[in-house]
Amino acid sequence: MVSKLIFASAVIVTATTFFLFGAYCQHVDVLRNLQKVIQNDPYAFFMRSKLYDSFRFFGINEDEYEEPTRMQQIMKYGFPSMDDVRLYSDFVLSYDRRNRVAHWVYEHLTANCLRNNAGVRRRYAHYLPDMSVPSNFRTDTTDYSCSGFDRGHLAAAGNHKCQQMHCNETFYLTNIAPQVGRGFNRDAWNKLEIYIRELTERYNSVYVCTGPLYMPKEKPSNKYCVEYQVIGPKTIAVPTHFFKVITVESKLPGGSPYMEAYVMPNAPIDSDIDIRGFLSDIKVIERNSGLQFFKGIRRCEFFGTNFKTVHELYKTFQ
Amino acid sequence: MVSKLIFASAVIVTATTFFLFGAYCQHVDVLRNLQKVIQNDPYAFFMRSKLYDSFRFFGINEDEYEEPTRMQQIMKYGFPSMDDVRLYSDFVLSYDRRNRVAHWVYEHLTANCLRNNAGVRRRYAHYLPDMSVPSNFRTDTTDYSCSGFDRGHLAAAGNHKCQQMHCNETFYLTNIAPQVGRGFNRDAWNKLEIYIRELTERYNSVYVCTGPLYMPKEKPSNKYCVEYQVIGPKTIAVPTHFFKVITVESKLPGGSPYMEAYVMPNAPIDSDIDIRGFLSDIKVIERNSGLQFFKGIRRCEFFGTNFKTVHELYKTFQ
Repeated sequence: MVSKLIFASAVIVTATTFFLFGAYCQHVDVLRNLQKVIQNDPYAFFMRSKLYDSFRFFGINEDEYEEPTRMQQIMKYGFPSMDDVRLYSDFVLSYDRRNRVAHWVYEHLTANCLRNNAGVRRRYAHYLPDMSVPSNFRTDTTDYSCSGFDRGHLAAAGNHKCQQMHCNETFYLTNIAPQVGRGFNRDAWNKLEIYIRELTERYNSVYVCTGPLYMPKEKPSNKYCVEYQVIGPKTIAVPTHFFKVITVESKLPGGSPYMEAYVMPNAPIDSDIDIRGFLSDIKVIERNSGLQFFKGIRRCEFFGTNFKTVHELYKTFQ
Repeated sequence: MVSKLIFASAVIVTATTFFLFGAYCQHVDVLRNLQKVIQNDPYAFFMRSKLYDSFRFFGINEDEYEEPTRMQQIMKYGFPSMDDVRLYSDFVLSYDRRNRVAHWVYEHLTANCLRNNAGVRRRYAHYLPDMSVPSNFRTDTTDYSCSGFDRGHLAAAGNHKCQQMHCNETFYLTNIAPQVGRGFNRDAWNKLEIYIRELTERYNSVYVCTGPLYMPKEKPSNKYCVEYQVIGPKTIAVPTHFFKVITVESKLPGGSPYMEAYVMPNAPIDSDIDIRGFLSDIKVIERNSGLQFFKGIRRCEFFGTNFKTVHELYKTFQ
């Protein structure tokens, strides 16, 4: 037999405890489901802090709850824009459906993924249309045939050798743009890609954002015009220029990153010209592409930008 | 005094009840907070079904939980694209930061908002930069001065007379594009806008999506090129064409909507030409703009599209 007082107390304590326990279980359940969405959907990921703010009662510690995902690693420095963002296994891409060329492709390179891993071969990969793009905006290899342009990689195949799938995915035509072959894709642009791999070997963690530009130029009428060719039945835009924004992370604990930005014309470039001649103010890229880099990180927080010589970079930055 | 059996039963029942009650309260609390995000953020709104799926335990009935908002009304037929989507009080807009002109503007017109409401005057409104656009992509009135182009409205000011704020917001420069004045903005384009208002008076619920096009044309070299002028210090693109996609809702209960699509060149148009001469296949607009209309609604579900005469439309569609 139990006294009424003890009975009442026991009921109240049980009620309160299980009320909180129930609320907590629901909190954890909804949160876990939402985290799966956040890990797989770039838009949910982009606005995750707003979504987490909905869990007011128990609060939430983002770092604690979030398993680090590849998207989170690659997009550490923020999304340059949010148009048709697509998550691949080793890079993130925003697709420009109007021009049928990506707006930007973001990669995170580590020395480990540049080495030739057993079995990963570039020759196993084939150019393929990305079937997840709606058919009227999806490009095919026939669009490039007889165009006179190379199918140039934005995220370079040589940067993704950890797994065969990573390499294969760089051959999706969403990651491809019409590039002048001789003098550009096979020469100056390739040199820039090799230089980025050298940076990765030396510093181990390098972020690269690559994309096209459609720059205006002055016409004989003194008007400024944007003009670019379109090729193939799907009218793929031929960019006038390409850019790369490179962020090199310091090996020192807590060290600031170093940043370089390049703009190269999509045209034959004299092999004697040093690629550092194409270093460019990041504002020029932002202005012409409509993208915004390093959202939420102030530029004064960089160790430095656009050093004029590799020597200066290698000597100063660690 | 209470028997032990009753005591045990009471504790178990209380525990279960309050566990569920706690879980339910947490469910309702998180859901309400999330709904506020969904109502105010276009990206959350766009992916709301994925977010609602996180509430698995109690499930969720979307229609029941969602208060109808203006965004929900305007975007009934889906988002054409998701690049920098901006919610204004009476229209929704996607801003093209690269070209400094909107990708599209969506409006929902009702007969009530076309009438002159007391105190709402167009002359109280002024062209203003939208300060929520980052400065390097934000246009100013100086960009248009001496350009020879009109500051043409995408969402027409005459469609938004319910409140002065609605009218004022159509004067934000995000909703403005460089348009040829004589023969286009003040003539053929204006006629099209008037025709849409007539449709609204007649059928009461009309959805309009307006935007620019940058169409390729054949060059003497037989290559196809996109070419457009850019004006002002902020290099605003001058579209080669403009489109309007119009969805008229049937007055019959459960009736299918009717759709029309127009493409007009941004050039002087002979005043004798009937605007129905500019009726266009919506696929042409989709292909050239990179947008996708009526996502989730099959085109065969329309009552009809692009009737050749207004007479045919008025006679057939109710």
